[in-house]
Amino acid sequence: MVSTPLLSDLGTEIVIPVCAIVGIVYALVQWYLVSNVKLSPEKHALNSSSKNGFAESLIDEEEGLSDQNVVVKCAEIQNAISEGATSFLFTEYQFVGIFMVAFAILIFLFLGSVNGFSTKSETCPYDQSRLCKPALGTAIFTTISFLLGAVTSLVSGFLGMKIATYANARTTLEARKGVGKAFITAFRSGAVMGFLLAANGLLVLYIAINIFKLYYGDDWQGLFEAITGYGLGGSSMALFGRVGGGIYTKAADVGADLVGKVERNIPEDDPRNPAVIADNVGDNVGDIAGMGSDLFGSYAESTCAALVIASISSFGINHDLTSMCYPLLVSSMGIIVCLITTLFATDFFEIKAVKEIEPALKRQLIISTVLMTAGIALVSWIGLPSSFTIFDFGSQKVVKSWQLGICVCVGLWAGLIIGFVTEYYTSNAYSPVQDVADSCRTGAATNVIFGLALGYKSVIIPIFAIAISIYVSFSFAAMYGVAMAALGMLSSIATGLAIDAYGPISDNAGGIAEMAGMSHRIRERTDALDAAGNTTAAIGKGFAIGSAALVSLALFGAFVSRAGISSVNVLSPKVFIGLIVGAMLPYWFSAMTMKSVGSAALKMVEEVRRQFNTIPGLMEGTTKPDYATCVKISTDASIKEMIPPGALVMLTPLIVGTLFGVETLSGVLAGALVSGVQIAISASNTGGAWDNAKKYIEAGASEHARALGPKGSDPHKAAVIGDTIGDPLKDTSGPSLNILIKLMAVESLVFAPFFATHGGLLFKL
Amino acid sequence: MVSTPLLSDLGTEIVIPVCAIVGIVYALVQWYLVSNVKLSPEKHALNSSSKNGFAESLIDEEEGLSDQNVVVKCAEIQNAISEGATSFLFTEYQFVGIFMVAFAILIFLFLGSVNGFSTKSETCPYDQSRLCKPALGTAIFTTISFLLGAVTSLVSGFLGMKIATYANARTTLEARKGVGKAFITAFRSGAVMGFLLAANGLLVLYIAINIFKLYYGDDWQGLFEAITGYGLGGSSMALFGRVGGGIYTKAADVGADLVGKVERNIPEDDPRNPAVIADNVGDNVGDIAGMGSDLFGSYAESTCAALVIASISSFGINHDLTSMCYPLLVSSMGIIVCLITTLFATDFFEIKAVKEIEPALKRQLIISTVLMTAGIALVSWIGLPSSFTIFDFGSQKVVKSWQLGICVCVGLWAGLIIGFVTEYYTSNAYSPVQDVADSCRTGAATNVIFGLALGYKSVIIPIFAIAISIYVSFSFAAMYGVAMAALGMLSSIATGLAIDAYGPISDNAGGIAEMAGMSHRIRERTDALDAAGNTTAAIGKGFAIGSAALVSLALFGAFVSRAGISSVNVLSPKVFIGLIVGAMLPYWFSAMTMKSVGSAALKMVEEVRRQFNTIPGLMEGTTKPDYATCVKISTDASIKEMIPPGALVMLTPLIVGTLFGVETLSGVLAGALVSGVQIAISASNTGGAWDNAKKYIEAGASEHARALGPKGSDPHKAAVIGDTIGDPLKDTSGPSLNILIKLMAVESLVFAPFFATHGGLLFKL
Repeated sequence: MVSTPLLSDLGTEIVIPVCAIVGIVYALVQWYLVSNVKLSPEKHALNSSSKNGFAESLIDEEEGLSDQNVVVKCAEIQNAISEGATSFLFTEYQFVGIFMVAFAILIFLFLGSVNGFSTKSETCPYDQSRLCKPALGTAIFTTISFLLGAVTSLVSGFLGMKIATYANARTTLEARKGVGKAFITAFRSGAVMGFLLAANGLLVLYIAINIFKLYYGDDWQGLFEAITGYGLGGSSMALFGRVGGGIYTKAADVGADLVGKVERNIPEDDPRNPAVIADNVGDNVGDIAGMGSDLFGSYAESTCAALVIASISSFGINHDLTSMCYPLLVSSMGIIVCLITTLFATDFFEIKAVKEIEPALKRQLIISTVLMTAGIALVSWIGLPSSFTIFDFGSQKVVKSWQLGICVCVGLWAGLIIGFVTEYYTSNAYSPVQDVADSCRTGAATNVIFGLALGYKSVIIPIFAIAISIYVSFSFAAMYGVAMAALGMLSSIATGLAIDAYGPISDNAGGIAEMAGMSHRIRERTDALDAAGNTTAAIGKGFAIGSAALVSLALFGAFVSRAGISSVNVLSPKVFIGLIVGAMLPYWFSAMTMKSVGSAALKMVEEVRRQFNTIPGLMEGTTKPDYATCVKISTDASIKEMIPPGALVMLTPLIVGTLFGVETLSGVLAGALVSGVQIAISASNTGGAWDNAKKYIEAGASEHARALGPKGSDPHKAAVIGDTIGDPLKDTSGPSLNILIKLMAVESLVFAPFFATHGGLLFKL
Repeated sequence: MVSTPLLSDLGTEIVIPVCAIVGIVYALVQWYLVSNVKLSPEKHALNSSSKNGFAESLIDEEEGLSDQNVVVKCAEIQNAISEGATSFLFTEYQFVGIFMVAFAILIFLFLGSVNGFSTKSETCPYDQSRLCKPALGTAIFTTISFLLGAVTSLVSGFLGMKIATYANARTTLEARKGVGKAFITAFRSGAVMGFLLAANGLLVLYIAINIFKLYYGDDWQGLFEAITGYGLGGSSMALFGRVGGGIYTKAADVGADLVGKVERNIPEDDPRNPAVIADNVGDNVGDIAGMGSDLFGSYAESTCAALVIASISSFGINHDLTSMCYPLLVSSMGIIVCLITTLFATDFFEIKAVKEIEPALKRQLIISTVLMTAGIALVSWIGLPSSFTIFDFGSQKVVKSWQLGICVCVGLWAGLIIGFVTEYYTSNAYSPVQDVADSCRTGAATNVIFGLALGYKSVIIPIFAIAISIYVSFSFAAMYGVAMAALGMLSSIATGLAIDAYGPISDNAGGIAEMAGMSHRIRERTDALDAAGNTTAAIGKGFAIGSAALVSLALFGAFVSRAGISSVNVLSPKVFIGLIVGAMLPYWFSAMTMKSVGSAALKMVEEVRRQFNTIPGLMEGTTKPDYATCVKISTDASIKEMIPPGALVMLTPLIVGTLFGVETLSGVLAGALVSGVQIAISASNTGGAWDNAKKYIEAGASEHARALGPKGSDPHKAAVIGDTIGDPLKDTSGPSLNILIKLMAVESLVFAPFFATHGGLLFKL
């Protein structure tokens, strides 16, 4: 029954690192192209390479190109934002570093205690007839891989932030030449981040596996069990990144808007607003660094989930390296596919008008999905034996290679569907957002009611897509199939991140244009980019949530297998109470994060008001505001406020597993998963829709929109209120929830050996 | 092992109807006392019985007592409201009647087809050695009990509405004499409704059981299986009542507020507002009739769930009538206990000031819980054998009588905890609502953010309370224990309904005072009653939701038993997709209901604006507005819009069960339960908190509150926006969700015989 794959083990060992390096090189090339936009006033800014494929006709009404003062000003502002972001991230990392070390010690102690820190080999958990490495070894290597994942995650977020703050002013400057040029710059910068993260994640994991193998040798179960620490590390850093960054950015954003736009009637990003630098820093630490860590975490976890199940399937039992590395091969193929896809946005086609931006981004999703489908077929054909067995809660299930290929494809296409549905509900080109905008006629209350209803409704199709993916992949290849479906959804992560990161970069670019006093035409161009960015951000969150649902289920399955239970019966009281309490956790978590943003925003409002009231000449623009105090308020609030929600997520599995045992913990995981995914989707779509309903009124591109506008009209004011409410929903609670789901699952998996031996103290008493 | 209970079967057959009749008589006495307040101007309104126990000192500053014009005006307005409500309910019942007949036919066809409409006796589902009545018999009797439950539910709602519209103007008139008198009138009227419903529900059920017994004889399993139709009938009517009534009331309320309060700056309930009658009608059809049907449904379902499980436990197998009727005995005791409790509010203590209202209502909860605890002990002692067995998914579990008593008590006390937590989060006497009010300083956006966070947070403790009740009752007596815990929570339903119904009555009373042009002092008194009413309404919803969670689980357990599956494994793909889709359903449902309210409110706004713009002299009060058109808009919208959400809830179990089978359906039920309960709690508490935050600012009872006010200030405007958003959350989607949860479970149980034989078509293909 067991055949060998077409790709030899040596081939695998070459292909994976080569693809990773290709990705890194490609990212560097993109960076080089972005760096051609000069931020120093000596040289003229027009020497960007003609490789962009722009015809002269595209450069519509260039303006202010010769004004060297603007360049100097942009450079200054960029510097301030970059410094603010760097300083915040370093502060955050100090706190997170302490946590990281403490948690690493905890992992070592918990896992080491499974067998009393014995150094003797033990019978394998899944095969009592063989001897495996001691629990102490797993404790040490899990701890190491945890730290490795954590550091990779931090580096990913940090790099993303650096690139974004490098690109924002450059996008502003390019916007002088037209919307197409600005788009290319922002998109290329996003691609730098996307490819660096995807390739980096793959490479570090690959190297770690090869190094760990030196100790583990043939004990692949132990090896890949230890590797799950990588996912835990990645995700726990992502949690702090998302929550901390989310609170930072939204406290600043909400605070700035409430005083600036509502009370003082000055435009967004006006340099007179003391919170404006904090707001722009926030985009980079929240939407960029946070999201980078988040998607890296998803990627690391789904790979780990697949690997740990594969290690107890025929791949691992027969030590079939190529098949074992199938998840890594899929990701490698993903890098190549995304590389080709990116060329369609930057080199094969041209953006000539504002209305082409969204289709271009949508085309990215379609192209990457179509190409990847072929790629998956190829990888499944050469990377898998024609038939093999997959561990299925105690038994081994026979699976064909084409079936596994379908599992990956199902996830990939489900991602596309989620992307399209998200676009439909959050883009102001379609009726849902237009209806929300229309409801602003009767004030903020109806706007909020319609917006909430839109978010709830937008959950329906994604959930069906996720359910079908789960059913198909589960039926074909049990939990391994689900893990591979998650990886399929994430296989185009480089493209996803590129189109996602481009949004906050454009947002920042608009802010810089405003602050540098550039003309309104520039601002309109960056606003158009930003509106598309709101939609892509929502799509990115859709992917993150969809994949989180799949990966959590896979991790949950792996946890249950490792904990030695073969069924999780809802009708057992232990499980049911877990289920209902688990379903409550996302609410608890959201309550904390929403309240944190609210309180921090109130403090920000007070400080901004204070400055407007006490600094003479501020409103007239003759004095500079004290930006630093606002930055400090956001920093302090986010550092302080990220601890309780972080603790909730990190401690719940430990407490439940230790006190109530694996059955209740299973319930908690399942409950948090099925409830959290709904809130996460509805929160990000509601927020995205409100933001774009506001932009719809502001842009006034249609008769209907003009009837609601202009800026400052009553419907516009109502729309601004909706936008402000949506801020914490879409950028703080919503996206943090998918981390909650994944993180509790991966943590349970890592601690499963401990819970299986020592868990359930309360029921034992 | 099997002993007999102390109470003889004959005793049981006497005690239950006697208690029910005592309840009905008590309700009639209360009604008589309310009717002493005369609405005709001939007689003087001061002849109300001195039994109220009011000392003269209480009648603080009587005013306007001699103005007979006011009495005439009140009577007129009451008439208009009563006519509007009656006419709406008749329209609603016409549609619902068609549905009822169609669904009755469906039940008959589905259940009759289980064994091809054969009239021969069949082997019993739980005991293959015996012969039971044919499936056709069960089909006929289930259909009858469905119709019986539906009609009882409609009658309950209708009676409630009649009483409330009888009492509202009388409360207004009594408010002239002081807040205490007004409180007594409103509370007594609530008690009429509470006792009528509780007693009526018990009596009809008791009679039905005795009549069905004539056919079923010794086949108690068949008998009580058929009786579950009673719960289904009750709950399906409740669904339409809640959704239809909820849309009606909130369309009118939101529409009236948006134009009247926000645009025209006229007070709430101003007679110049064309939507004002519709708004007041809405309180009666939504909050009164809807809630009456809802709680009756919960009561009927939890009783049915307990009875159906008891019938396959030793009670049913041994034909032990008294023990079998234990759930009915608990409810009978509940009526007596509530009767005594009510005396504490109306006769033993006196309300002398506004600040005593909330404590008095809270005392009702405490007294009824304490007394009921003793009552349960008594019933468990005399009504149960000392030891018996309960069906537990295939096996029989030995249970002691004291253990079952604890199950009931656990539910009862969990209800009290939920009540207190709800009070804490929705009353403006505590910091959560005050914080929300405070956040209005920075506008509507922060108000909404804080309000949502409050709602999310308020879920935590109730969920733990529910989880603990489930664990304890499940551990002691499996699903029967859970059903009895639900019944325990509902055992004080008469008191619960009394304190709940008193809110909308006071709300209406305030409206009538405003419309009759009475002094502001009267309005202040009714407002104070109404503020406490918002809290008790939230408490009532808390009870409804908590008991819904318990009863759904019990019904779910009964369904699983009847469908012949012994475990619902989350790790089976069929179950898991059910779980995640089930968790999505409350969002789908809420999206529909929120959007319906929003759209209907927009139509209402347009009509109200039209009238203000086109009817000359309307703003000046010289012409009367066209109330009827607004009533028609609300009526049409609610009738039309209640169908899609109703169809979603009613069809989901049928479609899932028929196409995907009982395993997926189990997943759907569990998912909807654990997800819906959270949204329901958070939605009602958020809405209640916003409403009371607004009232906190308006009342200006503290330094802090005065700093935010007065009416018309910016913080107050922000608070009004929050209140408006909360309206559909707390009165339409939130309370409908608990019906969604219960209804899907009871429907699955009723159709279980069909699904077990013919279900899962799609997987069979």
